Amino acid sequence: MKIGLDTMGGDFAPKNEVLGAIAVLPELQKGSEIVLFGDEEQIRAVCRDNGADAAQFQIVHTTEVIDMNDHPAKAFLHKPDSSMAAGFKALSAGMIDGFAGPGNTGAMMAGIMYTIKPITGILRPCISCCYPIIDGKWGLLLDVGLNADCKPENLYQNAILGSLYAKGALNEENPRVALLNIGEEASKGNLLTKAAHDMMSRTKHFNFVGNIESNEMFTGKKADVIVCDGFVGNIVLKMAESFYRIATRQGLNTDFFNMLDYEYHGGTPVLGVNAPVIIGHGRSSPKAIKNMILTTEKTIGAKMVDRVNNIFKEATLRDIES
Amino acid sequence: MKIGLDTMGGDFAPKNEVLGAIAVLPELQKGSEIVLFGDEEQIRAVCRDNGADAAQFQIVHTTEVIDMNDHPAKAFLHKPDSSMAAGFKALSAGMIDGFAGPGNTGAMMAGIMYTIKPITGILRPCISCCYPIIDGKWGLLLDVGLNADCKPENLYQNAILGSLYAKGALNEENPRVALLNIGEEASKGNLLTKAAHDMMSRTKHFNFVGNIESNEMFTGKKADVIVCDGFVGNIVLKMAESFYRIATRQGLNTDFFNMLDYEYHGGTPVLGVNAPVIIGHGRSSPKAIKNMILTTEKTIGAKMVDRVNNIFKEATLRDIES
Repeated sequence: MKIGLDTMGGDFAPKNEVLGAIAVLPELQKGSEIVLFGDEEQIRAVCRDNGADAAQFQIVHTTEVIDMNDHPAKAFLHKPDSSMAAGFKALSAGMIDGFAGPGNTGAMMAGIMYTIKPITGILRPCISCCYPIIDGKWGLLLDVGLNADCKPENLYQNAILGSLYAKGALNEENPRVALLNIGEEASKGNLLTKAAHDMMSRTKHFNFVGNIESNEMFTGKKADVIVCDGFVGNIVLKMAESFYRIATRQGLNTDFFNMLDYEYHGGTPVLGVNAPVIIGHGRSSPKAIKNMILTTEKTIGAKMVDRVNNIFKEATLRDIES
Repeated sequence: MKIGLDTMGGDFAPKNEVLGAIAVLPELQKGSEIVLFGDEEQIRAVCRDNGADAAQFQIVHTTEVIDMNDHPAKAFLHKPDSSMAAGFKALSAGMIDGFAGPGNTGAMMAGIMYTIKPITGILRPCISCCYPIIDGKWGLLLDVGLNADCKPENLYQNAILGSLYAKGALNEENPRVALLNIGEEASKGNLLTKAAHDMMSRTKHFNFVGNIESNEMFTGKKADVIVCDGFVGNIVLKMAESFYRIATRQGLNTDFFNMLDYEYHGGTPVLGVNAPVIIGHGRSSPKAIKNMILTTEKTIGAKMVDRVNNIFKEATLRDIES
C-alpha cells in the first residue's frame, strides 16, 4: 500500500515530517511505501542532513504550502499546487491508499469535501481517537471534535463507524458500543442522548450496550467504543491529554498515563469518508509523525469504505436513521 | 450558625453521617452547631458506640426515610416526617442556616422547589464543584449535573452564581470566569457556547475572560471559575474522579491527584436557591460527611442569597439576560 504524507503543513515542516517518515520505515508492513508531498529540495535536505537515503521515498514535488493561518476552504482552492491539495488529488485518483497530514484541520476537511467526499449515506464524517484502558488495551472515542452540534442520527452513524473501525483496525470481533452519558439508565441524559439512546437501542448495525458514564470509560469493563458529539468528545480528549501532561510533570511514569499521550497514535482518522485520511497536530514531533503513519497504515488495512458500503447496501438510509 | 444534616438518606445511614458529624466538631468555627435530622434512637446509638456525647448535637427526631429508590417529587410530599422533609422545613423556617444531605439528589431538588425555592430571577439553580489547580488552589466548575440541556442565559446565570460563590467561599477577590469550550476563539464551539460567549462578552456582572479548553482547566492560568452546561460538567467531574481512582490504584500519591477525590469537599452546593443546600453522594464515608459539613459552613458564610439579590436589585432580569 502507498501511504501519502503532507510534509509541509506542520509547525516544524518539513523537518519533523521527514524525520518521522525516516523513523517509521523499519516498522512498516512488507509492501508499504511512503509518498512524501512537499518541496523536494527541502525534503532531500532533511534526508541528507540525517544520513537517510531519499530514494526510500517517492517524492511528489509541490511549490505551495497551506499553513495554520490559511482560511480552510479558500486555501484549498487557491493553492492547487500545495502539498495538501496534491495529496488529496493523488488520494482521489487512487495513486495513494491513504493520506496523513499534521496540518490545518479545516483545510484537511475542505480537501475531503472537494475530492474524496463523504461516503454516500453518511450525514457527517467524524474524527475518532484511541484512549487507553487500564489493562493496556485501547478503546475508541468518537466524535472528538468535528461536529460540535449533533443530531441523534449523527451519533447513530458515529456508532456504526466506530464499531466498524474497532473491528477493522483494533481487532475487536464484536465491539461493545456505548453512548457517553450522565447516567446509566435510558431515561438519563440531555435531549440529544435520550433520543440517540432510543434509536441505538433498536439497532441491528452494532452491538449497543447502553449508556456509559465518563468514570467507567478507562476501566474497559463496559465498552470498546464510546460515542458522543464532537463538543463533548473534544472536551474529554483534551482533558485526558492534560492528565498525561500533569502526570509527566509530576514524574508519574505508568503505562496508563503514558498511553494518554497524543503522540502514541499521532493522528485521528476521519471516519465516514471515501478514503483513509488522518489528521495530526500542527506541532507534531517526529515520533508523532511516525505513529501517525502507522495509524494511517492500520486505517488503510481496516477497509472502512467497503465495510460502510456493505452496511449501507443492506439498509436504506431511512432504515439506518430510524 | 446552625448546620442541618440529614442523617438517614445515605447508603450507610445513619452511621456514616453521625460519625462524620462527630469528627467535624473540633474543626467547626466558634458558634457553629450541628442539627441532626433522623431517628433519634439510632443517632444516639451511633454516638454511644463511638464514645461520643450525643448532647453535642441538636437532634430533630423523624420517623420516615427517603432513600435512593424513592421517586423524588412523590417521596418528598408523601413522607412529610422524613429526615429530609423535616430538614427542609427547618431551613425554610430559618431554624437552621444551611442543610446538607447525602441523599437522593432528585428528592433534594424537590425539597428545594417545595420549600426554599430558587432566588427570584434565577431561571435554573445549578450545582458546582471545586477542582484542584496544580499549584494547590481550587477552581470552581458549574453546572456539574443539574441542567443537562441549557440555554445561553442559563450559562450566563451560572457565571454570575459561580463568580459570587468564588468571592464568598473561595476568597477570590475578582474571580476570572471562563466558558468551557473547544477552542479559544469566540467563533469556536457549539451553538450554545457561541451564543453564551456573545452574551458573556458584554457582561458587567462578572470578570469574563473568554473561552477555556479542558486542557487548560487544571493549570489555573486562565480562570478561577469555569462555566458549562450540566451534561458537559457532569462528564468532566466524573472523569476527574476516575483519574483520582486510577492514580490511587496505581499507587500515585501526589497532592494534585489526591485533591481530585470527591471526599475532599464531600458535597456540591446548590447555587441560585434561597438558602444553602449541599448534596453529597449516597455512598459518602464519614470523611466525606465531615467535609460536606465544612463545605456547608463555608457556603453559609458565602451569603450567596444576599449577593445574588444585590446583583438582581441593580439589574432587571432582562438586563441580565441580554
